Amino acid sequence: MRNEIPYKIYLDENEMPKKWYNIRADMKNKPAPLLNPETLKPMTAKELEAVFCEELVQQELNDKDPYIDIPDEIQKFYKMYRPSPLVRAYCLEEKLQTPAKIYYKFEGNNTSGSHKLNSAIAQAYYAKKQGLKGVTTETGAGQWGTALSMACSYFDLDCKVYMVKVSYEQKPFRREVMRTYGASVTPSPSNSTQVGRKILKQHPNTSGSLGCAISEAVEVATTNEGYRYVLGSVLNQVLLHQSIIGLETKTAMDKFAIKPDVIIGCAGGGSNLGGLIAPFMGEKIKGNADYEFIAVEPASCPSFTRGKFAYDFCDTGMVCPLAKMYTLGSGFIPSSNHAGGLRYHGMSSTLSQLYNDGLMKAVAVEQTSVFEAAQKFARIEGILPAPESSHAIKAAIDEALKCKETGEEKTILFGLTGTGYFDMVAYQKFNDNEMSDYIPTDDDLKNGFDNIPKFPGNEF
Amino acid sequence: MRNEIPYKIYLDENEMPKKWYNIRADMKNKPAPLLNPETLKPMTAKELEAVFCEELVQQELNDKDPYIDIPDEIQKFYKMYRPSPLVRAYCLEEKLQTPAKIYYKFEGNNTSGSHKLNSAIAQAYYAKKQGLKGVTTETGAGQWGTALSMACSYFDLDCKVYMVKVSYEQKPFRREVMRTYGASVTPSPSNSTQVGRKILKQHPNTSGSLGCAISEAVEVATTNEGYRYVLGSVLNQVLLHQSIIGLETKTAMDKFAIKPDVIIGCAGGGSNLGGLIAPFMGEKIKGNADYEFIAVEPASCPSFTRGKFAYDFCDTGMVCPLAKMYTLGSGFIPSSNHAGGLRYHGMSSTLSQLYNDGLMKAVAVEQTSVFEAAQKFARIEGILPAPESSHAIKAAIDEALKCKETGEEKTILFGLTGTGYFDMVAYQKFNDNEMSDYIPTDDDLKNGFDNIPKFPGNEF
Repeated sequence: MRNEIPYKIYLDENEMPKKWYNIRADMKNKPAPLLNPETLKPMTAKELEAVFCEELVQQELNDKDPYIDIPDEIQKFYKMYRPSPLVRAYCLEEKLQTPAKIYYKFEGNNTSGSHKLNSAIAQAYYAKKQGLKGVTTETGAGQWGTALSMACSYFDLDCKVYMVKVSYEQKPFRREVMRTYGASVTPSPSNSTQVGRKILKQHPNTSGSLGCAISEAVEVATTNEGYRYVLGSVLNQVLLHQSIIGLETKTAMDKFAIKPDVIIGCAGGGSNLGGLIAPFMGEKIKGNADYEFIAVEPASCPSFTRGKFAYDFCDTGMVCPLAKMYTLGSGFIPSSNHAGGLRYHGMSSTLSQLYNDGLMKAVAVEQTSVFEAAQKFARIEGILPAPESSHAIKAAIDEALKCKETGEEKTILFGLTGTGYFDMVAYQKFNDNEMSDYIPTDDDLKNGFDNIPKFPGNEF
Repeated sequence: MRNEIPYKIYLDENEMPKKWYNIRADMKNKPAPLLNPETLKPMTAKELEAVFCEELVQQELNDKDPYIDIPDEIQKFYKMYRPSPLVRAYCLEEKLQTPAKIYYKFEGNNTSGSHKLNSAIAQAYYAKKQGLKGVTTETGAGQWGTALSMACSYFDLDCKVYMVKVSYEQKPFRREVMRTYGASVTPSPSNSTQVGRKILKQHPNTSGSLGCAISEAVEVATTNEGYRYVLGSVLNQVLLHQSIIGLETKTAMDKFAIKPDVIIGCAGGGSNLGGLIAPFMGEKIKGNADYEFIAVEPASCPSFTRGKFAYDFCDTGMVCPLAKMYTLGSGFIPSSNHAGGLRYHGMSSTLSQLYNDGLMKAVAVEQTSVFEAAQKFARIEGILPAPESSHAIKAAIDEALKCKETGEEKTILFGLTGTGYFDMVAYQKFNDNEMSDYIPTDDDLKNGFDNIPKFPGNEF
């Protein structure tokens, strides 16, 4: 062992966070509010409560309180699968022969296979507390749907999942995990909703997108008594719940006097990245510390690096509120060539604001290079990563190799959000050298941008 | 929280075992030696070294030394995924409303999905140390093959896996995990070996068995320069490596002054059960403590509860040495109806001796009831268990329910050997109510027993 830092740092149960951290309270430029698409005025709590659970609406709108208590019942559930380990990647450092110190926060050691459970259990709890019958949602790669199924099963709530068609087909076993937890799973777009039928009429061969699936799930939630819609990413409330990742990480690092120089996370809707960086970003905003933050996105769906910062619909069917965010346009459907999640056209408003304020960088990486990094990581560190997480691995390895060139002993922290056990169709493509890269042309992007609504104050 | 015992007990790195425990050194009746099937004399080290790595042969034959050092390189690898947590099943206790206290040692949080990695890394290490090019093996459910692929990749060894055909077909994604780690995977029986061709000629439609796959892997190892055969269960050396499970468990329990009354493990070839119980059994043998040990096996492949204690072949092709063990006969092939592992016709010689000496009990459970227990456990404790592990869950729940009736506050410990993420075909059958139970008739068993070799001293 090269020093006294163990391979894995686990917090004791009594060191686990008892409050979530709400980064918005400390941001100088607050994320812009959600707008009602008809009135173009900020959505009121009452309007939001038609779609979302009451207490979650309060969390969504709260940009004042920096800390919010984690209810006892949720803390109890967290203890079943948390704390997650902060891992020192000694073996990876050795193989790369880098002077950098690499750490990752591993969120994959639970049956949902990812960090998504952190918010799923919170959202299910508030739905149960409100006396609802059940919830509806969409899922892309299937991690969020699995997480929500587990959470709903725990609280005995009905769970209706709309699963992006391409994932439904690529991942039949994800569906069975959800069914094992008692959820119903429908491939999206489907004929079971008005908006699904409309999308299918326009694009009969579509492989679906998160935006479509959101529209369907919202329709079902708002037309069925006792149901609300829940979402696994993008929203402020989700980033709030996911702050447990960053809080645990920071507590573990502080315990061993480790200070990260670079903090890296993959970014689809922003739930993992927002959660991981939250307490570190809070310090940076207050001027108490400096960190470099890097969002890693797929080159096939480059919201940060090539998108517009504008008000846009969160869903393809344009039934949801408008959010101000980096977006490729709600009509943008990434190539089905791209494996796994991170296929969302938009991005968390909170992260979008931080990025726009220059507090965070972003890079886009190509699929094949991501799977090369994934295979390398699996072989060296013994964990088969999810394709989504592997975007962060790719960027972390690149940073470590830069350190090898410059001789800098940087401390690199990245979020290993999940495992790839349900992504073997994609790995098989890679193993058989049948994987290719897709980068949208400027024209592809222009088509997407044309769908972004135009109104005064929404120039881009 | 009901008392001060946390949901999960993780040892610190410096508390991890540095030696394996060799139960045979403390057994009064030693397990019978392997016999050369031609001479019916105990296999010598030299004979065994044609098949196995030299240092592993020494471990196989060693019934004198109670402790054997874990080499530094293996300790280093262990630190990547160990210690595994000892979990207090608070939620399960609450749902069952039992006064029993339930603990499980969870070995599934690594990419191989099970405890098999504990021995795979040791065997790969000794193969590398001996300067071999590679190793061959068989795999049933695929956990051992995955574990060995990971271990070989770490030490840059070639890895040839013969996978039982029914699992190969039910678990295509297991194959891809092995390929991701660089292994070659062949469905067994195959046309690539003499013994495979012979078995296929006799049983063209066979779905394979561990016994067949072992024969093929041994043939390839002994006919290729620089290769040896490695095995994931049954052997003494494997139980030795797996003692890390029990040693960690006992250290964790001792730390919190917990004393188990009942210790439960599933039993296929015996690797997990033997590893979990080892240090506890050692105490029992020495008269320092009393524990009740329960081996749980599938009713479809009931070696302990309905088998014979006799010398028998370890493989279907009858190319391996004879082992004295509880066996159903090397020709016994369990119904392909049975999902997952635990399909082996024999049982560890060490465990067989302990069972024959009355130091351990065994129960057989039926498949559908096992999946009912698995689903219940997944929903309550948040971990989707492997079908194999679920045998132990079923027995542990039964014990806890007995305590509910009697009011006894027993402490129950069971081994949760792995996760079921690659077993979703079986779960799907269960979810669709298409799962059935198979129990061999006395005639089925008699056919198997007829294959057990007859010679003086091998009466049964």
